[in-house]
Amino acid sequence: MAWKNPTPTVDLIIERDGHVVLIRRQNAPLGWALPGGFVDEGETVESAACREAMEETGLEVALTGLLHVYSDPARDPRQHTLSVVFTAVPTPGCTAEPIGADDAAESRLISVDRLREILRTDGTIDGLAFAFDHAKILGDWLVFRDTGIRPLAPVQRQG
Amino acid sequence: MAWKNPTPTVDLIIERDGHVVLIRRQNAPLGWALPGGFVDEGETVESAACREAMEETGLEVALTGLLHVYSDPARDPRQHTLSVVFTAVPTPGCTAEPIGADDAAESRLISVDRLREILRTDGTIDGLAFAFDHAKILGDWLVFRDTGIRPLAPVQRQG
Repeated sequence: MAWKNPTPTVDLIIERDGHVVLIRRQNAPLGWALPGGFVDEGETVESAACREAMEETGLEVALTGLLHVYSDPARDPRQHTLSVVFTAVPTPGCTAEPIGADDAAESRLISVDRLREILRTDGTIDGLAFAFDHAKILGDWLVFRDTGIRPLAPVQRQG
Repeated sequence: MAWKNPTPTVDLIIERDGHVVLIRRQNAPLGWALPGGFVDEGETVESAACREAMEETGLEVALTGLLHVYSDPARDPRQHTLSVVFTAVPTPGCTAEPIGADDAAESRLISVDRLREILRTDGTIDGLAFAFDHAKILGDWLVFRDTGIRPLAPVQRQG
C-alpha cells in the first residue's frame, strides 16, 4: 500500500532594518514570494531554510523563530506542499545586499510600512501579485510582529 | 529527475489537569510516544493532528499552539520524517478517558511532575523508553511550559 503525503518546503521572512526580503519568482507559479524551497531528504528544515536563503538571495542568515506551518492543500497549484515558515535575520557581519539567484529572478527589500500598505490595498508590487499563500503568511507575520499572537488555523470538524 | 523529501508527520502534546497523554506503540519502533502519525495528501497538518488524536486515544482535541518542527534525519529509524508538534487540550465537554487504539497498544495519563522525574532519570516508564525523539520533544515542551522559550535547532554551517 503506497501512501501519499504532502511534500515539505521551507520559507523565510528575513528582516533587516525594518525591511523584508522578497524575491520575484523565475518559474511558475510566477509572482512575488518569500525565499524558500523544498526540503531535501537528509537535511533538517533549519538547514534547508539557510541553504535556500543563500541560494535565492545570497544572504547568510540566522533563524530567529518558527512562525507557523502552512499546509492548505490548495496553497501550491503544482502539488500539495506544506511550508515551515521561519523568521530570520542576516548574520552579523553579513553586509551583502540581497541578490536574486537560482529560482529567483530578482530580490528586493520592501519596508514593513510599504508591505502593510500593499497587503491592505491590491496586494501587488509593480502589478505583480504574490505567489502561493505568501500574502497570507506575510499578513500573519505582521500580526505576530505587532501583537505576539501566532497563527493557528482553525480545524474543520471531521464529523 | 526525482527528488526525495522527508515525509511529514504530526504529534500532539495533549494536556489535561496537569497530565499529558502518552501512548505505548503497537508497532515498531516500540516505546512510549506522543499520539501522532503521518499527514495524508489533501489534509492540513491541523486536521491530521486532530484525526490522529481521535484514532489513537479516542479524544476530541482543540489545538492550542505549535511547539516546533522536528526534522533530524535520524529521528525515525524507518525513514526521514519531520514532525509538526502541536500542543492541545481535550475539547470542553470531552470527558472521555483516553484509550489506546489504532497504532496505540495503550494510552496513559502521566502527570507533568512524574514526566519531569522520568526525563531527569532513566527516561523509561515500566522499563520501556520513548520511541523516536519524543523524550527530547517532551523536554523541550517542559522548558517552553516553564519559561515560554521555544526550541529552535542550531544549524550546521554548510561550509
